[in-house]
Amino acid sequence: MPGDPKLPFDPIERASELWTKHIGDPTSMRLATSIMRVQQLIIAELDAALKPYGITFARYEVLVLLSFSSTGRLPLSKIGERLMVHPTSVTNAMDRLEAQGLVKRVADIEDRRRTFAELTPEGEAVLAKATKQIMSIDFAINGLDAEQQDRTYDLLRSLRSSAGDFSEG
Amino acid sequence: MPGDPKLPFDPIERASELWTKHIGDPTSMRLATSIMRVQQLIIAELDAALKPYGITFARYEVLVLLSFSSTGRLPLSKIGERLMVHPTSVTNAMDRLEAQGLVKRVADIEDRRRTFAELTPEGEAVLAKATKQIMSIDFAINGLDAEQQDRTYDLLRSLRSSAGDFSEG
Repeated sequence: MPGDPKLPFDPIERASELWTKHIGDPTSMRLATSIMRVQQLIIAELDAALKPYGITFARYEVLVLLSFSSTGRLPLSKIGERLMVHPTSVTNAMDRLEAQGLVKRVADIEDRRRTFAELTPEGEAVLAKATKQIMSIDFAINGLDAEQQDRTYDLLRSLRSSAGDFSEG
Repeated sequence: MPGDPKLPFDPIERASELWTKHIGDPTSMRLATSIMRVQQLIIAELDAALKPYGITFARYEVLVLLSFSSTGRLPLSKIGERLMVHPTSVTNAMDRLEAQGLVKRVADIEDRRRTFAELTPEGEAVLAKATKQIMSIDFAINGLDAEQQDRTYDLLRSLRSSAGDFSEG
């Protein structure tokens, strides 16, 4: 974690050696553990980079998604679906973003049960600055060139596909 | 998320296309996003597999670490360091595990400020069953053979190393 004293050895390699000694093949254990660790490192760096703009990466993702919509708005249900997060998480992110004046909720006049989210001009301005900032740190992806990044992405995509993350091949 | 309706397309690929169209090179964005998604999938599957044993993966990791110790006990501070988690997380995990009778806290007679964690016989029994269960699902790593898993591990290790996760090379 940021701020922790750095260990003079790789704790996942160490765990891997101990696993081999006490239990057996460490292949899947060390990969699972390292995915969780890399996720922690990335989210911590992204959240820190976005802090000056008053948003987290989870809220940044909502802003980006809205900006990609051709109509400038999306139903809340679609936001959860696309970001693969629970409806409660979308509600929480929306509450914060709305309180900050970065998005607004708009009732669907054709279907009163449905609510749209819409970027405000202030939201667009914050999004532009946040995107610049996040691109300047390369989305917290360090130490891999573009080709290695694509290779990692493809390997993780096989994993997502096998876990049933989406239904096309 | 488990239980969510499966999308007929890969939302990260879709986000990647939209990013290319509206912003630019999607390489690091889609890798960062997919690492976060894979982490979600893995932790959900691991936690579900461990549910019958009354523990989460975070608590399972504490049990494993204690079982690897040659003395059968570890100072709480070392647990946090090795699992790369905040001291508060160790305290929470220990509180739960102790209430379940799977570990116990033991005062260090040489240094009263220090507390050890120790596996109970019940903790050892649960750990053995949990490990069997988790190995049977290959640590929730699906769709990659051993060679691909090692390749992914090595790529992510470069990323961890560059992010300053440990100080040796």
